[in-house]
Amino acid sequence: MSGVLLDPRLKRDCHPLGRLEGSELLLMRNALFPWFVLVPETAEIEFYRLEMQLQMQLLSQINLLSEFIVENFPTDKINIGMIGNMVSQLHVHVVGRNREDSCWPGVVWGAQQFRPYETGEVVKIAEKLTSSMHGRFSADPAIITLKE
Amino acid sequence: MSGVLLDPRLKRDCHPLGRLEGSELLLMRNALFPWFVLVPETAEIEFYRLEMQLQMQLLSQINLLSEFIVENFPTDKINIGMIGNMVSQLHVHVVGRNREDSCWPGVVWGAQQFRPYETGEVVKIAEKLTSSMHGRFSADPAIITLKE
Repeated sequence: MSGVLLDPRLKRDCHPLGRLEGSELLLMRNALFPWFVLVPETAEIEFYRLEMQLQMQLLSQINLLSEFIVENFPTDKINIGMIGNMVSQLHVHVVGRNREDSCWPGVVWGAQQFRPYETGEVVKIAEKLTSSMHGRFSADPAIITLKE
Repeated sequence: MSGVLLDPRLKRDCHPLGRLEGSELLLMRNALFPWFVLVPETAEIEFYRLEMQLQMQLLSQINLLSEFIVENFPTDKINIGMIGNMVSQLHVHVVGRNREDSCWPGVVWGAQQFRPYETGEVVKIAEKLTSSMHGRFSADPAIITLKE
């Protein structure tokens, strides 16, 4: 189904949402924040060493996702992070932050605050992505399973 | 000297290093990490709303700076962050991380570990930037003052 073989820790920490061109889109298993993770198809672990074409593709997906977050969640600031200290597989965090959220103004990385998603919430986010992204996003088959 | 009017907190927390085209380059006042901050000339606070040309310029500077860090500091991973929860002025963190550094594998944002730079260290970094970046970087006049 997917061209991206996910690091086991990403797999454990995130709900699979679906695919954008050349990237897997995940949702961090923490309903306190709209916290998305883009995982491009590459074995490279450093952004600056990616080919320009792949950098541009990621840039466009970061923009698309940022817009989606702002339009669908109460958002005061978009936080973007490429860290990779714990999971070396290249991935990009795109997180909607809100002055009322549980770790504002701190960063979400390393924070202990947590609430799991209820199944319906993840399905709803995948459905919103499908309808907002005009064919650029295709939902993961696992979403269907979640729905059942 | 500079086209970027800096937020007072960035001014307080960072040493000015100099200019890259259209951006101010700062060094976080924490010698535990090679922690650079790019501040582009823009009133926009969200990356995804920047014009494509400015996004591309920043991308190129992130690449340049990442390479500079890897070549000049013992680096296991580059961390990139666009956060802006405390300082709304758009800025990009580019940080060289090392498995032996004082907050690995955690993120540097919000960490308490700290060591101030000695003056000579900042001057040395500015000099290395000048010699590495082949005319793309011009050192801040304040660096000269530091040297005295």
